[in-house]
Amino acid sequence: MVKVAVLGYGTVGSGVVEVIEKNKEMVSKKAGEELEIKYILDLREFPGDPYEEKVVHDASVIMSDPEVSIVCETMGGTTFAYNYTKAALEAGKSVCTSNKEMVAKFGPELIKMAREHGCNYLFEASVGGGIPIIRPINYSLTAEKIESITGILNGTTNYVLTKMEREGKSFDEALARAQEKGYAERNPEADVEGYDACRKIAILSSLMMGKNVDFEKIPTEGITKITPADFEYAKAAGRTIKLLARAKMIDENSLEAMVSPVMLDRENPLAMVNMVFNAILVKGNMLGEAMFYGKGAGKLATASAVVSDVIDCARHKENAIPCFWDAENAEIVDAGKHVNAYYLRVKKSAKEAVEAVLPGGKLLEIPERTEDVAYFTQPLSRNAFEKICEGLGDLVLGSLCLG
Amino acid sequence: MVKVAVLGYGTVGSGVVEVIEKNKEMVSKKAGEELEIKYILDLREFPGDPYEEKVVHDASVIMSDPEVSIVCETMGGTTFAYNYTKAALEAGKSVCTSNKEMVAKFGPELIKMAREHGCNYLFEASVGGGIPIIRPINYSLTAEKIESITGILNGTTNYVLTKMEREGKSFDEALARAQEKGYAERNPEADVEGYDACRKIAILSSLMMGKNVDFEKIPTEGITKITPADFEYAKAAGRTIKLLARAKMIDENSLEAMVSPVMLDRENPLAMVNMVFNAILVKGNMLGEAMFYGKGAGKLATASAVVSDVIDCARHKENAIPCFWDAENAEIVDAGKHVNAYYLRVKKSAKEAVEAVLPGGKLLEIPERTEDVAYFTQPLSRNAFEKICEGLGDLVLGSLCLG
Repeated sequence: MVKVAVLGYGTVGSGVVEVIEKNKEMVSKKAGEELEIKYILDLREFPGDPYEEKVVHDASVIMSDPEVSIVCETMGGTTFAYNYTKAALEAGKSVCTSNKEMVAKFGPELIKMAREHGCNYLFEASVGGGIPIIRPINYSLTAEKIESITGILNGTTNYVLTKMEREGKSFDEALARAQEKGYAERNPEADVEGYDACRKIAILSSLMMGKNVDFEKIPTEGITKITPADFEYAKAAGRTIKLLARAKMIDENSLEAMVSPVMLDRENPLAMVNMVFNAILVKGNMLGEAMFYGKGAGKLATASAVVSDVIDCARHKENAIPCFWDAENAEIVDAGKHVNAYYLRVKKSAKEAVEAVLPGGKLLEIPERTEDVAYFTQPLSRNAFEKICEGLGDLVLGSLCLG
Repeated sequence: MVKVAVLGYGTVGSGVVEVIEKNKEMVSKKAGEELEIKYILDLREFPGDPYEEKVVHDASVIMSDPEVSIVCETMGGTTFAYNYTKAALEAGKSVCTSNKEMVAKFGPELIKMAREHGCNYLFEASVGGGIPIIRPINYSLTAEKIESITGILNGTTNYVLTKMEREGKSFDEALARAQEKGYAERNPEADVEGYDACRKIAILSSLMMGKNVDFEKIPTEGITKITPADFEYAKAAGRTIKLLARAKMIDENSLEAMVSPVMLDRENPLAMVNMVFNAILVKGNMLGEAMFYGKGAGKLATASAVVSDVIDCARHKENAIPCFWDAENAEIVDAGKHVNAYYLRVKKSAKEAVEAVLPGGKLLEIPERTEDVAYFTQPLSRNAFEKICEGLGDLVLGSLCLG
């Protein structure tokens, strides 16, 4: 019998309890023995809840109980949750988490601490919800040199962009719709500004590099400036617009990394990922491309990923589960030097001015659009492109990376 | 240092050697120690090959060498390869294979034998080439009750169908093109008749059930009867045609399983899988759907999957790697009882006769097609549908499951 404590009885935490209960037989079979929830830590009371009796308010009860060997951290945040995670690992208890802020910020420290105390710090649920991605990178693509990882890692923004594309909605309308449906939070900043995707690509690219990728250094741009006009041009060019989180290994110590909307070719497998779905495209030097696709959020899907970590810990009581993520920082290449082709939408009256500064740009006109035109540039550095845009000033109406 | 032997120096076998050589540093890091190819078993000589000196013609040299702890079986077939696999496992050497015929036919026996001799029998490369799928099912989706697995598991047929769809080619023309490009073999029967996909879904569904699914009992239909006319109707209805391998758990002991072409709704994520790509859609009771996508074949991709198994064996020297696949046979439900809606293409002159026997069928007409019409039926059992088709005799021009 493996005794488990759950920290935080919110959406994911209660999902963890539900998955362990509903799939008891399967979970026990896979873990090699039965799992039992011994404690649930929460500040609140849950009168009438079937697990009411397991609820405790004092974390030290859990940390000092030698029977508890695995702790699920489903609280979120990096203050209390950080202290509890450290206390659990120091007590030799493995920690399984869905908390991407924590993993992005303190991953290498906590992995190292786990190793020093003969336990594990696992975080399958921190990226892609229920989509298996951390474990496939760590356990399956082991014969590969991973060259790049590109993902649609945020369901909220993908829903908004899909609605804008399919229904011609503005960003604000599509966001309001997402909020009504419960796909976006009241304060949607972390999603629509790309911060959530940024933390997730920091985690994935750290595993790619085997070194730490500091999420605060990843250039991050959200989707708030995308307009229906941009989608019209995308459609006319056989493309779509997606918020991509991208990381590309340059050498052992450095990588390109960024989060930004991209006007994507329809042949790219990520172009077909719509609504709240997420997908991660991993390119290996032997394998070529493999894609992992599914719902990137949701109570039970995310909880299922946490429980898969719990099972992994139960199976590996004596051994550390390999995870290559050192504390040393990988260098993120200056984004100004990224070379890319761009989409540039300008006032129609600016055609001559644009063509003078943008040699080789491909003109895109839509007969119904009388006020603007668009160009697809030749590949150039972001610095060079931004300089051109600055020079054009008010004539520029919108721009996006091409991908 | 872990010493490895490769049985069969053909496409995949030489790929295994290449992956271990090219990604030496990464592979050693992930395995925890260096891997060395000690022997390559092949009947042929390879003068001038950098590994010429490692080639042996007598398997007993490998089996009797206690230094060799891992054997890669990349020979194919189930005669010599079967004897060598057994000999290796009996000598306590783990075996990693890409041989789907072997796994489908002798999987449970070889897994059991490995367990009894303190070693492992792993087969990530047997399904989906380099796409991680066996290990995600065994290690990642462990908190799930997997309810169904549906896959595009054969790149050759998917290429042929994509060419038929995109270029209006006949089956024969598209197949000839695939043969020219090296995507189809000279004798394409195993691919186009669905036998290859059948073995692969037998392997996946055995892991879903934890019991053996006998590939010989899976109703299997290939793509030879599909015509450009069928694609015209598919297009008119916003659908496409894919060869799907499907398994659905009914209860702990029984499942539905089949391989057949399906006229698929465009909203299904498998509908967007084109050319030689494969994809596997796994539905879990907590997760919902997750899809794994990539190139399902190719020398280095397949070899990379074999090497990932080698790394797993090197990491787990002392422990058996869990794999739930008992010898007991799961029951495959009589396909006549499957309930499905169907597409039925008939001579235009047969409209009245069809409508008399097919109440509620939805008529599909294409103005340019003067000789035939099509119907989408209500859901009915396959037995009932086949009876209707028999009654219509020569009036029936084509039919497909809807999915």
